[in-house]
Amino acid sequence: MAEPTYTMPRGMKDIEPDEMAKRIWVNNKIMEVFKKYGFQIVEPTPIESLETLEAKCGPAIRDEIYWFKDKSGRNLGLRFDLTVGMARMVANRYDLPIPIKIGAISGMWRYDEPQFGRYRHFYQWDAEIFGSEESAADAEAVALGMDILENFGLKEYEVRASSRKLVDSLLARTGIISPEILERTIVTIDKVRKIPEQEIIEEFKRIGLAEDKIKQIIDFASMKGKPDSILAELSRKIPEENRQGLDELSEFFEVLGAFKKTGKCILDLSVVRGIGYYDGIVFEAYDKGGEDIGAIFGGGRYDKLCRLYGKQDLPATGVAGGIERLMMSLERAGLLPELPQTPKVAVIAVTDEVRKKAFEIAQYIRSKGISADVDLRKRSLKKQLEYADAMKIPYAIILGPEELKKGTVKLRDMKKRLETETKIEEIPQQLSK
Amino acid sequence: MAEPTYTMPRGMKDIEPDEMAKRIWVNNKIMEVFKKYGFQIVEPTPIESLETLEAKCGPAIRDEIYWFKDKSGRNLGLRFDLTVGMARMVANRYDLPIPIKIGAISGMWRYDEPQFGRYRHFYQWDAEIFGSEESAADAEAVALGMDILENFGLKEYEVRASSRKLVDSLLARTGIISPEILERTIVTIDKVRKIPEQEIIEEFKRIGLAEDKIKQIIDFASMKGKPDSILAELSRKIPEENRQGLDELSEFFEVLGAFKKTGKCILDLSVVRGIGYYDGIVFEAYDKGGEDIGAIFGGGRYDKLCRLYGKQDLPATGVAGGIERLMMSLERAGLLPELPQTPKVAVIAVTDEVRKKAFEIAQYIRSKGISADVDLRKRSLKKQLEYADAMKIPYAIILGPEELKKGTVKLRDMKKRLETETKIEEIPQQLSK
Repeated sequence: MAEPTYTMPRGMKDIEPDEMAKRIWVNNKIMEVFKKYGFQIVEPTPIESLETLEAKCGPAIRDEIYWFKDKSGRNLGLRFDLTVGMARMVANRYDLPIPIKIGAISGMWRYDEPQFGRYRHFYQWDAEIFGSEESAADAEAVALGMDILENFGLKEYEVRASSRKLVDSLLARTGIISPEILERTIVTIDKVRKIPEQEIIEEFKRIGLAEDKIKQIIDFASMKGKPDSILAELSRKIPEENRQGLDELSEFFEVLGAFKKTGKCILDLSVVRGIGYYDGIVFEAYDKGGEDIGAIFGGGRYDKLCRLYGKQDLPATGVAGGIERLMMSLERAGLLPELPQTPKVAVIAVTDEVRKKAFEIAQYIRSKGISADVDLRKRSLKKQLEYADAMKIPYAIILGPEELKKGTVKLRDMKKRLETETKIEEIPQQLSK
Repeated sequence: MAEPTYTMPRGMKDIEPDEMAKRIWVNNKIMEVFKKYGFQIVEPTPIESLETLEAKCGPAIRDEIYWFKDKSGRNLGLRFDLTVGMARMVANRYDLPIPIKIGAISGMWRYDEPQFGRYRHFYQWDAEIFGSEESAADAEAVALGMDILENFGLKEYEVRASSRKLVDSLLARTGIISPEILERTIVTIDKVRKIPEQEIIEEFKRIGLAEDKIKQIIDFASMKGKPDSILAELSRKIPEENRQGLDELSEFFEVLGAFKKTGKCILDLSVVRGIGYYDGIVFEAYDKGGEDIGAIFGGGRYDKLCRLYGKQDLPATGVAGGIERLMMSLERAGLLPELPQTPKVAVIAVTDEVRKKAFEIAQYIRSKGISADVDLRKRSLKKQLEYADAMKIPYAIILGPEELKKGTVKLRDMKKRLETETKIEEIPQQLSK
């Protein structure tokens, strides 16, 4: 057989029926939680001006996204997340009561090297709160993320939270000033909970940090545990005048407590969310139900981004998670149901003379809200039954000329291979059992 | 105020909450019908190889779509419809029982000149049947389209159907051979039902057709009416050996009759669906509830397309409609409900000391499946009530220190401005009324 000429581009994929049914189910469960928390669903444009995308992450983002010139020479890019679009959407709106709580579940594109199970087009859920600088907003973002997991019955997970302000103030005490070194230091701090200490030390050395500074940084970046005890420890160490980050984190955990969501939360100072625009509380959730598959959701505060897109003062915080990774977690935990899209019944004509009647009966069944397939290929009874079997359609209605004269059909349970004679008008009731 | 720096690209738009809620509702109603007919929902990749897109419509499509080179020099394009992707998906699959009935509701992109209400990114629903050459499949596609409209309660519409094979055989009798002239003739035939005859004649003259041929073409392209009478008339005119198109059309209407769907159907020989790949029965539906807004759904048979993408013999037919246009029709007919995404209740703390309790109560209400908002800005009672009003939240729960001591709150009907004292544990029940 010749190779197909027209294939899918590298890193792309089609979503087949079984997976699609699961995705629709997952999206609906997420939207339930969005709704309960008062987040309104939106969909920002998938194509943004390149400058809008670059504003969030700098021009280096060009290497990681799909961008191109349109026919009039404008630089455009496919969105790489939903935060940018939602921030741009609200940044120039002065008519909306604040806080603005919006969410989206949509696709996005990144020009990463494709890996097993990772594609260049993927989906995220994302909920953002614009217009509150209170830590209560960060806490609500985290509570929403946790309730999304719990709405699926996912219980073995852990949330790790920290504060960029707190980390920045601790870093300031080491005397590092160079923005480039600070940035590389933060990237390394993010690895403290993931790789062995010796490798962390090597990495800090490569950055050029002195040993005493390395020790200082590793000391605080390794702090993690129950919020109350870590907060108490930090409170002893941090001078009064430098406590904004700590105070915010205290209030964050306090509100999270009121939300009944602290049981699975850890304060972990190595959580910094590498990307440059986070500037307050940050957090990540991990599925603990097996081998680590990376953060199942994450987010934090980015008070400066909206100012960039327009509106003067619109503090913001949010939470997002990958749909594909969530589905992996749910699959692993046995929480993703099989949801076959097959119709309930195949309407089968035994002879050509009753074929028209098959369409009538299929339509009658459909009008009663039951899904029905009907032969579109003028096949024999045998072939039609084989098709119903192959499609895993659970029931067949078999129309023979003799039965039709009496106003009956044979209702066949395809699995049990049992047939019962049924009046046509009783089919819907029989199938609804 | 300075102009915003970061705006949306021309022809793009964001979907705001009210519209998004309507879209979700519309999509679900369409999926209900897909399901009843046994169509399985899929999502083909939004990015295709440019050659896949060109295969359907020729290289001229480049001018009308978004295409670009990826970082390794491959030509890619954003899909301009869902048919291409679904055809490519199945064209190389030998494992699927046929017919394959799949559907999708997704976004696509075209580089058209933006007009009022028309954007460069828009959505379609699309259902395709692969693997049946029978007219019954075309009839099922039309019946599905009609049931989609009727599932919304849309009743004033009309379906116009024809056959490209029939039109081609009638055209053959005029003696036109040049493919280019044939193509331009077909494009003009499509306008016969839309613009005055004199303009049609002028257009045919510009193509270079002789007057007798023009008369011949206009004569048959103007044939329209109840299927039975037009079929009888055609049957008298068309010689026996040239009747495949006519026979298919007869069977198409016969099956449509069995589906109880002929009442709103007209046979109209001017319907040809310009685009080159249609090669059998074609159809279009029009909303008759007001000023013409163009076809509300359309489709037809394209037996050759899958052969192009791979599999030798996979006849295909399908139906698609624009979501935006459908929503315009539904809006006009008053069939698109307002579906505000606002939460049911705002939980409001009167003083700082009860603020934590507000989070607890909000969470308690949410845990009962009721959507609740809670203040994230440490606002005064007055400001919180103003926010609830601005957001059109129908109820407020007002927490005062005195009431809380008794385990009660004030439940306020925001519209009636009525307050009743309610026990906390009775809130969910009160709000579910």
